[in-house]
This record gives sequence, C-alpha cells and structure tokens, in this order.
Amino acid sequence: MSANWGKNIELSIFGESHGKAVGINIGNLPAGIKLDSEKIKREMSRRAPGKDRMSTARKEPDEPIILSGILDGVTTGAPLCAIIQNSDRHSKDYSILKTHMRPGHSDYPAFVKYGGFNDVRGGGHFSGRLTAPLVFAGAVAKQILAQKGIRVISHIKSVHGVCDESFGPQISNETVNALLGMRYPVLNGDILPLMQAEIEKARENLDSVGGKIECAVLGIDAGCGEPFFRSCESVLSSILFSVPAVKGVEFGDGFDLADMCGSEANDCYYYDGDAVKAHTNHNGGILGGITNGMPLTFTVAIKPTPSISKEQNTVDIEKKENTTLEIKGRHDPCIVFRALPVIEAAAALAILDIVRADI
Amino acid sequence: MSANWGKNIELSIFGESHGKAVGINIGNLPAGIKLDSEKIKREMSRRAPGKDRMSTARKEPDEPIILSGILDGVTTGAPLCAIIQNSDRHSKDYSILKTHMRPGHSDYPAFVKYGGFNDVRGGGHFSGRLTAPLVFAGAVAKQILAQKGIRVISHIKSVHGVCDESFGPQISNETVNALLGMRYPVLNGDILPLMQAEIEKARENLDSVGGKIECAVLGIDAGCGEPFFRSCESVLSSILFSVPAVKGVEFGDGFDLADMCGSEANDCYYYDGDAVKAHTNHNGGILGGITNGMPLTFTVAIKPTPSISKEQNTVDIEKKENTTLEIKGRHDPCIVFRALPVIEAAAALAILDIVRADI
Amino acid sequence: MSANWGKNIELSIFGESHGKAVGINIGNLPAGIKLDSEKIKREMSRRAPGKDRMSTARKEPDEPIILSGILDGVTTGAPLCAIIQNSDRHSKDYSILKTHMRPGHSDYPAFVKYGGFNDVRGGGHFSGRLTAPLVFAGAVAKQILAQKGIRVISHIKSVHGVCDESFGPQISNETVNALLGMRYPVLNGDILPLMQAEIEKARENLDSVGGKIECAVLGIDAGCGEPFFRSCESVLSSILFSVPAVKGVEFGDGFDLADMCGSEANDCYYYDGDAVKAHTNHNGGILGGITNGMPLTFTVAIKPTPSISKEQNTVDIEKKENTTLEIKGRHDPCIVFRALPVIEAAAALAILDIVRADI
Amino acid sequence: MSANWGKNIELSIFGESHGKAVGINIGNLPAGIKLDSEKIKREMSRRAPGKDRMSTARKEPDEPIILSGILDGVTTGAPLCAIIQNSDRHSKDYSILKTHMRPGHSDYPAFVKYGGFNDVRGGGHFSGRLTAPLVFAGAVAKQILAQKGIRVISHIKSVHGVCDESFGPQISNETVNALLGMRYPVLNGDILPLMQAEIEKARENLDSVGGKIECAVLGIDAGCGEPFFRSCESVLSSILFSVPAVKGVEFGDGFDLADMCGSEANDCYYYDGDAVKAHTNHNGGILGGITNGMPLTFTVAIKPTPSISKEQNTVDIEKKENTTLEIKGRHDPCIVFRALPVIEAAAALAILDIVRADI
Repeated sequence: MSANWGKNIELSIFGESHGKAVGINIGNLPAGIKLDSEKIKREMSRRAPGKDRMSTARKEPDEPIILSGILDGVTTGAPLCAIIQNSDRHSKDYSILKTHMRPGHSDYPAFVKYGGFNDVRGGGHFSGRLTAPLVFAGAVAKQILAQKGIRVISHIKSVHGVCDESFGPQISNETVNALLGMRYPVLNGDILPLMQAEIEKARENLDSVGGKIECAVLGIDAGCGEPFFRSCESVLSSILFSVPAVKGVEFGDGFDLADMCGSEANDCYYYDGDAVKAHTNHNGGILGGITNGMPLTFTVAIKPTPSISKEQNTVDIEKKENTTLEIKGRHDPCIVFRALPVIEAAAALAILDIVRADI
Repeated sequence: MSANWGKNIELSIFGESHGKAVGINIGNLPAGIKLDSEKIKREMSRRAPGKDRMSTARKEPDEPIILSGILDGVTTGAPLCAIIQNSDRHSKDYSILKTHMRPGHSDYPAFVKYGGFNDVRGGGHFSGRLTAPLVFAGAVAKQILAQKGIRVISHIKSVHGVCDESFGPQISNETVNALLGMRYPVLNGDILPLMQAEIEKARENLDSVGGKIECAVLGIDAGCGEPFFRSCESVLSSILFSVPAVKGVEFGDGFDLADMCGSEANDCYYYDGDAVKAHTNHNGGILGGITNGMPLTFTVAIKPTPSISKEQNTVDIEKKENTTLEIKGRHDPCIVFRALPVIEAAAALAILDIVRADI
Repeated sequence: MSANWGKNIELSIFGESHGKAVGINIGNLPAGIKLDSEKIKREMSRRAPGKDRMSTARKEPDEPIILSGILDGVTTGAPLCAIIQNSDRHSKDYSILKTHMRPGHSDYPAFVKYGGFNDVRGGGHFSGRLTAPLVFAGAVAKQILAQKGIRVISHIKSVHGVCDESFGPQISNETVNALLGMRYPVLNGDILPLMQAEIEKARENLDSVGGKIECAVLGIDAGCGEPFFRSCESVLSSILFSVPAVKGVEFGDGFDLADMCGSEANDCYYYDGDAVKAHTNHNGGILGGITNGMPLTFTVAIKPTPSISKEQNTVDIEKKENTTLEIKGRHDPCIVFRALPVIEAAAALAILDIVRADI
Repeated sequence: MSANWGKNIELSIFGESHGKAVGINIGNLPAGIKLDSEKIKREMSRRAPGKDRMSTARKEPDEPIILSGILDGVTTGAPLCAIIQNSDRHSKDYSILKTHMRPGHSDYPAFVKYGGFNDVRGGGHFSGRLTAPLVFAGAVAKQILAQKGIRVISHIKSVHGVCDESFGPQISNETVNALLGMRYPVLNGDILPLMQAEIEKARENLDSVGGKIECAVLGIDAGCGEPFFRSCESVLSSILFSVPAVKGVEFGDGFDLADMCGSEANDCYYYDGDAVKAHTNHNGGILGGITNGMPLTFTVAIKPTPSISKEQNTVDIEKKENTTLEIKGRHDPCIVFRALPVIEAAAALAILDIVRADI
C-alpha cells in the first residue's frame, strides 16, 4: 500500500486501527512557523468519537504526540511526525472478519489484494481511524495557511436528504465566524434538529445514513493551481477521495452545471474597486484548473457508513458459501459530522500543496 | 505548468492550440505490445471536431505522428512520444483575448498566474485541443488493457437535463457491443434525438449546454488499487479532473449515496459459482479504494462550454474597467459527445497506472 | 526539508538527534513477508555506537519499536513505521552551536536555509543518528531481497589510505560467509590492525580519518534497472549520497575506468553452460543502466567525520566576527566501520526499489 | 522505461537513435523568461558530432525544433517541448546487434529486459544521441540560472590518465571567461596536445579512451538543497549517472577525502567583509546536502566508449554459443570532449530543480 501524498508537501501515513499507533510524517513544511497546540487539539477533538449520541462508542483521547520537526512550538523545517496511540484496543474477537466479508466494507477487496495478510482488526489500515493523523496534519496546514490569510470552512450540506442551504458567491465574515463556533456547522440552524432526527431514526433501525459536506477556501489569491494534471480540482479530489466513504466530489455547482446553459454557468466579471470579482460563483472559484479569486467551493458525498447492525447477506470465503452476517453492538449511524473536520483537513493539505512555493 | 501525470506509467503532455503541435510522451509502457494503428485513428476521430453539426467548426485531421517507442508496430519499451500537428492555425486576431477576459474561461486566472506571458491564441495550453494527445495515449492504454481482458466503455448520461438510463450492476455483452458501435453512445436510443434537440436549441440561442457521461471499466479483477492516497477513486479523479470542463466526479451511485441508508447502499455478496459477486453495484465496484470485481463505474459532469456567442459582461484588464464581450463566429454548443472519448481515455490511462505492475 | 525517497517503495524519514525519536515509514512493501526481528536487531547493533574504542561515546540501545505494518511477525502490506527513541538525550549546552559554525558540518548552510529555526542540538535532523532508521529499513529490505536470492555484502576498502583488496569479478560463497561473520569486514584480515592503528593515531591527535567502503549486490538477475533517469547508478547514487559523509560514488572500477582503454574496460561475455557471464567486471555489473547478471559493485568515499577536538578557525555569526572553536569531550575518530551497515542498507533499499515490481 | 526526471522541474525524454526524432518535454518552467536561441544552438553544436577528428563520423545538424512553451522567444510557462530530427538515419544493417552482444554496451541487459523488442539500431533509446535533448534542456536551464547569477562551467580533468589541473577554492572571472571561450576547455593549455595525442593513439589502435570532467557551479547562494534524500549530491548524481558512460561522481575532493584527516578536510570559515567564506573547498561547496556559498564542484568519470573496432570475444544469444565480434568503420575514440556540454547540461538541470522554488 502506498503511504504517500503530495508534491510540494509530503505526507506519509501509517497505522492500523488496533496496532500500537496511527500517525503521519509531513515533509517540506516551512521553518519558523509558530504552531498553537490548543488549536490542533481542538481539531482533533472535532473528529474524535465518543463525545455524544451522534458518534461511535469508541473513546480515544486522540492526543497527538509530536516526535519531530517542532522545537519550542515552532517548526524547524525538518519533517514533522506525530503519532496517536491506540489506547482503546479491544480484545474482542475479530476472527469472523477473516471469513465473513462485510458488505460495503473493504474486507473482500483487501482479502484478495493482500492474500489474507492484512490486519482485519477494526478494519486495520482501512479504518476511519486513519483520518485522525490526517486531521492532525490538516490542523498544521490550516495554521500555516491562516498566516497567509487563507481559511478553510465547511458545513453539513445534507443528511439523508435533509438539506442545508448552500454557500452563495460571497461568504460573509459573520457566516465564517458562526460556522467556526458551531459544533455541528450548518448555515440554516433550523435544519439541524431534522438532521439529528434522521440519524436517530437510523440508529433505531440498526441502520446508517449518508450526507454531503460543502467546503469553501477563502482568501486564496487568483492564479493558484495549474492547468491539466495539477489543476486545483485534480489535487483536491485526489486527497478528498482518499478519505474513506467519500464517493463524489464536485466543484462549484458541480453536477448541476451539467443541466445549465453556458450563459447561466459563466461567472461574469466586474471591477469591485481594483479587484476583479464575479456576481456568481457557479465554477467554484476555479477556471482552467486555476483559482480566479472567488471563494474556492466544493461538495463531497459521504456514503452511509457500511457498519450497520442489521443482518446482511454475504459470503464466507473460507467455506466458499453464501451466509449471513449480523454485527452486534453499538455502531455509528452517521459519520458525516465527524467527517467534516477530515474534509477540511484534506482541503487544507491540498491547498498548502498548491501554494507551498509561495510561502 | 506541470506536464506530468502518473506513477506507474508516466504521461508528459505539451502543446498549445496554435503552436506547432500538441503531443504526449508516455513512459514505462511494457515492451512487446502490438498496437493497431487503425484503432488509434478511430479513437482520434471520435474526438476530432468538424464532423457534423454537433461539433465545432475547426477541421483538423488529427493524425498522430509517432516519434519513438514503436518499431514495426510493436512497443519497444522505450518512451512513446506522439505529436499532432496544428495544421489549422487561424491567422485571426486574438489580441482582444489579451485584455477582455472571457467569462467561464481560464483567461483571467492564467493572466494572473503567468503575468500575461501565456499564449492566449485559441486558449493556448488551456485549449481543449490538448485532449487530442490524451485520447492518443488512451487509445494505446486501451489496447494494452484489452490484452488483459479489461475494457472501458461509456455513454452520454445526460445533455442539459435530458437523461439516458444508467448502467445497472451487470453490463451485458450486447450492451457493450452496441455502445462500441455507436457514434453517439446512449443506452436508450430514443433519447438521442431529444439530446440533439437541446443542442440545436442552444446553437440557435448562441448558447451552449452541458451534460454527464457515465463510464464503466469491465473485466478488472478484484484487488486492484490501494487504500487511501492511491485509492482507485483518487487516481481516476486526479486525471478526470485534468480534462477541461469536468466539474464533478462520482463513483457508483455517487451523490445519491448521500441520501441512502447503509442497508440500501451496501452491496451484498453472493457466490455465482466460484465467483464472488453482488446483486447491486451502488459502490461502483470500489470499496476501501480497491476493486471488488464488479464493474467499476463512475459519472462525470461536463459544464457547458464557456465559448458562447452571446454578449457577456466582463472586465478589460488593460483599461481596468467593466466592459462587454461578444465573440463572433460559429462555436461548439455542446462538447459532451466529443468529451466522451476523452473521458474513456483518461479512465484507461488511470486503470493502466493502477494495474501496470501486473502486466 | 524533504522526507521522502523511492518510487516503487516509499521511504519517509523523520527525527532529530535530541528529539523524542527518530524513525521511518516504509510504504508499498509486499504483504505476507515473514520478518526475523533478530536479524533486524543485529543490523541495528552493527550501526549502534558505544560498543568499543572504535566508536563514539554515545550509548543508545537503538531498539526499533514497530508501530504498524507487521502482524504476528508478517508484513500486512500496510505502511511499516518504526521509531527508535532517543533515550540518551544529553542535557548539555548546545548554545554555542547557534553562533559558532563548526567547519565541515551542516551548521552554517542549515542556519542560512532555515533562518536559525533548525534544531542544532546534536546536529538535529542532520545528525548521523538519522541513519539508524535507514538501517532498520535496510534490514527489512535485505530480508525481502534474500527471499529472492539477492544478497548485499560489503567490506572496508580503506581507512586513511590503508587499503584492503577489491572484490574480483567472481565473489565466492566463502568470501560472502566470511564477510557476514566479521564485526569489521575486510577481505584481507592482515590489514585490519593497520586500519585500527590509523584510527588510534587520529584519536590521539584529536583528529579523525575517512575511508572507503566497497559493496556488492549478489544474485540480482540481468535485466534489472532502466536506461537514463532510472538507471541502477542513478537510483543507487541518489540514496547513497543521502547518507551524511558520503562524498563519492563509483560503480565497478569507477574513476579508474577514466584511465583505461575501451579494450580493457569492456567486459567480454562467454557462455558458462547456459549462463552468460564475463571474465571481468570493470563495469560493476551495470551497462546502459541495467544489470547484466554479474555482481553489481560500487564503492563510496566516506569523508573524515568533521567532529574533531582540535581547535579550528571559524566564524561567530551572531557577532559577525572571526573566532576559534574547540569542542571538548570524546569524539568518534572514524565512522567508516559504522557507516558500513548504513551503506548496505541504502543499497538494499535502492535494489528493492528497482526490483519491487517483480516481487 | 521511465522517461521522467525532476521534482520541481519535470523532464520527459524520448527518442531512439534511428527513429524519427529524439526530444524532451520540460514542465514547470517559469513564464516570462527570454531565451536566446543562438546560445541554445551553440550548446547543441558543442555536443554535436562530426566537427573534427576528435569526434564521431556521424553528421547531424542537431537543430532543435521547439514545438511548444515559447512564444516570441519568451517562455509562456507551458511545457516546453523540443525535438531534434534524426536526419542521418543510416540504412546499414543492424541485424548482427540482435544476436551478437557488444561488450561494454547495453545490448545484452536490454535484450533480457525488453525481451528482444527494444530498438537496437544505433543503440536505440540507449544511444548517446539521447544526450542531444538533454543538452537542449540544459541550455534552457543555463539561461534561466544566468538570470539569477548562477553559472555552470567545466573543464576536461583528464584523458586516459593525462591530467589537467583542478579548480581551486576560488575560481576567478578570468578562468571562467577563458573556459567559456575554449572549444576544448582545459585549465592548463599545455596539456591539451598531450590529451589529443592519447586520442590519436587510441584511434590508430582501433581502441578508445576515457577521462574525467570537473564541473563548477558559481554564484549559487548558501542554503540551497536539503539534507538527506534531496541533498545536492543526491539530486546532481541522479541525473549525472543518467548520462551514458558516467561511472563515477565525486563532490569536492571526493575520493581523496577518504585519505584525509578531519583537520585537513574541514573547510574553515572566515569573514570576507560581510560574506562567510572558506580558505579551502574540499567539500565542494556542499555540507549536510546544502550549499555553503563556496563554488559547488564535482568530478565525473567517463568510461572509454565501448564502441571499438578491435575484435572482441562475446556471445551469440541466438545460437547460444561463444563468438567474436568486429565492428567495421570509423568510431569515436574519445567522447569526453563531447560529454562535457552534456555534464554541464545535467548539472544546470539539477541546480534548476534545486533552486526552482526561488525563481
């Protein structure tokens, strides 16, 4: 399995759900950046499970231990490695996962690829737990970007079809500050209880639900990114699709653009003082792969978590026969809220990779 | 601008719309593969403009000249470089594009990024013409994949909201052969005239329309791809989003998965003889980033081409004032049909990059 | 600072001499390889200081802690990360290194590059201590290669001008086994005391001495490597020159080839049964960047360690004036013996990167 | 075969000796750089054969045709591709090279690797002819570097043991200008006739001779490069060893450092006004992988060209028997002079890759 991502920054990820630790090494960071460890912890806690009824039962302190690259709170320029120990390593029996392939999970393709040598406990390297080091790295990236005036924000766009509003072409400071202060960021506060009701219903049904997250990158100058293979869309999507459960990525109006006319979809420019702006932002701030100075916006689709407690049909690959599988115990009926800081982290890392040369 | 894509195969693209030639160099191809030049020409001609009313006015023979890497029709293992000369280099005056930024085009972000040194004639390196070498490379990739039993097919899923059917979980040989034989591949033949009507209407309105393309990769074994950063979704999306006009990529049911329950979205396995299969394919044949043996399916959103003949508001960056722009002459009201072979080519190249080690 | 190396395997290194730990993450290893932890420890101990008079005073157990990628002693295919804790973190005062640039060390260029934010304690990320994780990774690579019949061996070719013999075109099993059993591997045992005498003399003079290491890769098939940018020489040299203190790399007869005629330098082939062999091996088993089936041989030059206890002239960059520097305490008068397992490790990793696709 | 090199610039090379053309694509060049095509031609002509008795018989105009990336003599920022047509494609019979493996050439390892599908005519992709596009790319890199005050110079250090002097720690402008004006650059003009005599003797003997080239990079600031895997030595050596015939690379005093004491090898700093300098330059301007502001110097060993007209023993891989081979016709008895611009080009490209972010 490949561990690396990035051209101008270098991520190298490792760990399994029930191994000693998960972690990440980040190469090519700038030296001399003061990092606020409290902000990093806050990001980690947004992703961490076990906080309330909307998340999984697993409780992890998720305290990152920084092994290198920081001295007296300031980056040294050397690779920054952090690990998060797996304190809550259940002793429970995972042997059924060696034979009974969970539908919707990586069990079967991983079995084929790794010949049965992959660690199946808790999903092993495929576990959502691997997003913890990603959030750590994203928290570092966010702070570096903030020093250049770039911010990454997001909100829950939908849960099981219950939809929030969308970012418009202009995103006010009030909106930004409001979202940053919310534990469950939505643009329309009235919608949150309806989303939570969907999740509760799924929990009662031993089922799960998916959703969408809309993200915006603010303060990024026009002229970032490249045409073709290193387009902003390419760089962002390649890390966004690394996040388990992401099955769709669209920029600006995305799939809705397919139903539009050019005269609707083209964002017409005007001068706002000396600044070139557009009245609309259907293209999500990216044209020809390069930012145009408008907010860079995108939406991701998060599939319902495949871990459900309902009985499902599947195969036993040892006995080579059809069977059923029922996984007991509490499960997480909706990971969309916890996925939100992961998506922001991935976006921050992609943007840092794009603008790194200018820092 | 970065020119390169790929880890296990190495693409390096070059050229501008009105320069001497566009082309591509492909490194790390296997030696000893017999290539059928007629098949390559056929792919090129699917993308080439000028064939009928549904395409642009520009007429290019688009004959690739192979400079290296092939001897007596067989790959030598050395880098394969092909160029396509720009025979139809209009002498028309492009100077207005230096000052008047076309909405929806790369003009403005490219001006900022390259300080005005970029070639604006016909869009320069940002031109859709750069997809010609991509189709060439894809045609080579398709033939290499075919020798492993892997095929890439696609159909127009929608044009301006007029929708075709979708691939189901099983794709029959009849369907494959039918699609391969069609100039404008659709699953439901009745829909094609309605799509064409949308395009004609856009042409009359001096406007353009977008659409969607659904693509399937057949015959790919379970166990291809990797978790996280080299997930099949990551590798595919990074090249798909390189194609100008692509603004959304989703795998399997993609964004619709966000509205589902886990019990719907999970594709339950069963044994079909010795083969592990699933009755549904909501996940598009990929779980945990790795193929599960079902058809790998994805859909892309193509925005309406920004080149329209209607008058639009924009800015004059020389005079630093608001202005309007009206581009005379015929334009291409819908590039979705021509984009189809490009999307197939990008998919074939991504799949070759994923399975290269096994060839 | 970049952390990564490798195309087909992925190394990502981290750590500073006096930070919490040094370590390495290794991506894209094959799954299902049984690793012998005793062999890994043996390699680590060959590099570890503090064993005898021929090494530095620092005592580190250098016990690698494997965080991921191994389950029940077998590789899972997931990234393998190991760390080595820095137990012996001196509390001594390093503040003089902030101002007085040690000649021959990275102090001054690192100060310029990182604006003084780099960790100077014990050399920080520039420390030879970073070779410990490299030796760990090399020990893993050696075991994977051994399962393909490939072995990496080496001997001390010279210390301060006192020279051992060279590998000839054929390297017998007796030679291999003898070298593997020696703590200080030399081909001519009589030479070892003379080398040690040089080192003792340097120690008494508060000085240091350099030397050369010759390395051979045995059992590697003809046809490995590539022409040009991924030549065996390119891949090997890029990691060998990563090892601090290496200032020269030559393949086969290397610089001596510059003084030869073609008729001497060309290794003429003959059939030894079905096998193509050569009577000589001036080209070190590599032609056109690709192995020819003969032992792959190369030699590296190790400069004398710049840490000496003699007084030296240098600059004080704070006061911006000329000054002198005298570093008290014991130092390591010759690192050539300890560099030997590092060079073998680097070679093993390069070869694994070259042959990875075939495993 | 891999085609690519570079992290911050992107080279992609292609072509075979007797194919249509050789060429190179260069990605990630800065936009807005005015290039002097006469200077490019001059570099090309330094490498080109056929000029006098000291070179091969093949006559090629070696005129690069620029396909993209340059408009009105100025870089556009888009990938710059240039090809050089193979006008002099001999119709001679190369079939013996399919069976009789030339000693010292890539014939046998390439046959094994590519299963006999590689183009053997004139060495195919392994031909020294591939260095023509490298010289083109290097000529571009040199001009970009020159605008930052960085110059790359070199001289013939030895031919078949006849040695020129070495660069000292300071390289005067007189020396630089003198070398730039010489067709056969040497520091000590008296030595040139002796070198030429060696070459003539080799020609008469139907043999060839090797030599060494010393290169210096002037005007490069302290603080360029990185520790470990992206050390200046690693980046430079990886492209230098791509040049066919290079079998050794050393930095500063290189292998001679192995025979020194630390007190000799350490270059002691002093202030020359505000500038930190050293009286000696044994380390070739690189410490810890990073430049220290002294001239960056290195030497490469060029093996005698394996193409000789003497009869040699070898194998016939078709008949699987020992045989002899005698290649008729004129050959090039010494490629060291022609290799000099290639080494400079490789150095310029490596340095551009190292400093690209600062341009």
